[in-house]
Amino acid sequence: MKNIYSAAQKFLQAQIKEIEKRIPKVVAKEPNSLYEPCSYILESGGKRLRPLLVLASAKAVGGNHKSAYHAALAIELLHNFTLAHDDIMDNSDLRRGRSTLHKKYDVNTAILTGDILIGLAFESLLKEKNKNIKSIVSTFTKAIIEICEGQSLDKDFELRENVSINDYKKMIYKKTAALFEMSCSIGAQLFTNSTKYIKAVSVYGKNLGMAFQIQDDLLDIMADEKEFGKSIGTDLLEGKKTFLLISALEKAGLDDNASLLKIFRQKGIDKNEIEQYKNLYIKLGVVKEAEKEIKNYTHLALKSLSSLPDKSGKDLMIWIANSLISRNR
Amino acid sequence: MKNIYSAAQKFLQAQIKEIEKRIPKVVAKEPNSLYEPCSYILESGGKRLRPLLVLASAKAVGGNHKSAYHAALAIELLHNFTLAHDDIMDNSDLRRGRSTLHKKYDVNTAILTGDILIGLAFESLLKEKNKNIKSIVSTFTKAIIEICEGQSLDKDFELRENVSINDYKKMIYKKTAALFEMSCSIGAQLFTNSTKYIKAVSVYGKNLGMAFQIQDDLLDIMADEKEFGKSIGTDLLEGKKTFLLISALEKAGLDDNASLLKIFRQKGIDKNEIEQYKNLYIKLGVVKEAEKEIKNYTHLALKSLSSLPDKSGKDLMIWIANSLISRNR
Repeated sequence: MKNIYSAAQKFLQAQIKEIEKRIPKVVAKEPNSLYEPCSYILESGGKRLRPLLVLASAKAVGGNHKSAYHAALAIELLHNFTLAHDDIMDNSDLRRGRSTLHKKYDVNTAILTGDILIGLAFESLLKEKNKNIKSIVSTFTKAIIEICEGQSLDKDFELRENVSINDYKKMIYKKTAALFEMSCSIGAQLFTNSTKYIKAVSVYGKNLGMAFQIQDDLLDIMADEKEFGKSIGTDLLEGKKTFLLISALEKAGLDDNASLLKIFRQKGIDKNEIEQYKNLYIKLGVVKEAEKEIKNYTHLALKSLSSLPDKSGKDLMIWIANSLISRNR
Repeated sequence: MKNIYSAAQKFLQAQIKEIEKRIPKVVAKEPNSLYEPCSYILESGGKRLRPLLVLASAKAVGGNHKSAYHAALAIELLHNFTLAHDDIMDNSDLRRGRSTLHKKYDVNTAILTGDILIGLAFESLLKEKNKNIKSIVSTFTKAIIEICEGQSLDKDFELRENVSINDYKKMIYKKTAALFEMSCSIGAQLFTNSTKYIKAVSVYGKNLGMAFQIQDDLLDIMADEKEFGKSIGTDLLEGKKTFLLISALEKAGLDDNASLLKIFRQKGIDKNEIEQYKNLYIKLGVVKEAEKEIKNYTHLALKSLSSLPDKSGKDLMIWIANSLISRNR
């Protein structure tokens, strides 16, 4: 068992290198004012999770991952477009330990960098010589629309008090899980017409994305700061409507409710209150609830793999799911 | 002759109605925070020039324009994406006599509206059931990249003193003419594989776009304010590097040169100085020079039509070119 997983890990690490080797090749040189910020955001690391999902899904349906790099790269480019624009909208200062684009340069540069990344993403995708290309480009386009809708819903939440867990799930599906789902779907569509296989990897991607986002919310408050590599409790400081806060509001009695409402009515709490809210979350059982949801979604993701033909590809997908569930950053 | 042109005008006006009838159908309802601003910008009028170029080019190569509406609409959507984001970057307050998106809503909404318009544009384009769809999507993608590069060059010009007419032409090709060229190319690609025909309409579109942009620069200072529908001289007020200013700098003697450099070194002039600069432009001959360039580019555009097979389609393209050259707004 251990060998399989270390083989998967080794393979995926090699793929990250392969993807990162290809990134500079999709970025032109001139105008430098446009492409230099592009390189800056693309070369700032990150998990490269979404392109790995393309490659793993490609293998899982029996395809050759080496013929999927253009698509994998396209999805990484698209992901970075969302980061560039989301960071402006969220007024974030830091991303992966470095200044965000609009802080390092300016808002205009960050807008335009996001825009060109969409263009470069389609350009990379269209390099795939594949008979399913129209359907692949459609899947890609659908994800862009979902992501924008998700970001809009997320912004709406800032102004709404009555956000339910269902609203939240709809939002994170669009904002996060749709791109995971699309990555897997495209990885499969490159090599198969089997709707069964395409559906299987898509269901995996979608559920993995849901687990990933709830895990993100959970880590923000429960992570070990040293392992996490950044300060915890930022969602509370910003008054963000996370799984934990929405869930806590649904479970809380009158007293706790007032204290929770304060989080977003005052547009965030003070740093010295983080511990108190963390304990409230634990007391209300929403930390356990989040852990349960993460497990459930991960279970649904893994269950969906059973019908797929290629064992080594499935092993990659299992490894990715397990490493996400046990991540500490 | 007159009959042909009034027929062309009538046909194109009917097509504008057809396009505007279809716009609401591509915009979803929820989230309202995203789609309401989309409708706002899309339904604010405009010349609908680029979709008309698609339809006219389709006819000119012998195609049926009724099978090109999805592509025509896609290009109008893409054009509106550029307006949404450019208006943020240029800090413009008004567009077509109404508040710009970021003024009516906010910058975040305008960013996200531009983003979703790209998604909707590809979605509309992909509705075309066409065997050349991959090549069409590639042409569309290439134009997005050109437009972003053009916008970046335009921003660069704000900080550069040494902008030549060649730099300027390269910039307006990317920022404006590439989209005209692409509109025509896609209109043709929908109905023909003839590289000769595709090239012919593309050359028309490219040259028309160049003429259009120089005309834009010219109208900004030479238009009759009443007919123009907005105040003249805004490029001077903002210190923008237009064809006229760059050309004037190339022609001016030492004295005039100092006065011209002032325009962008001081980031714009005062309103009461507009007349003086207008007279300087006339004196230096750059108004005549701009008129000559517009005529030349329009001539090149029209010349390129000779090889095309469909007379009624060509008449549309001739009518568009002539109406652009004689426009007063």
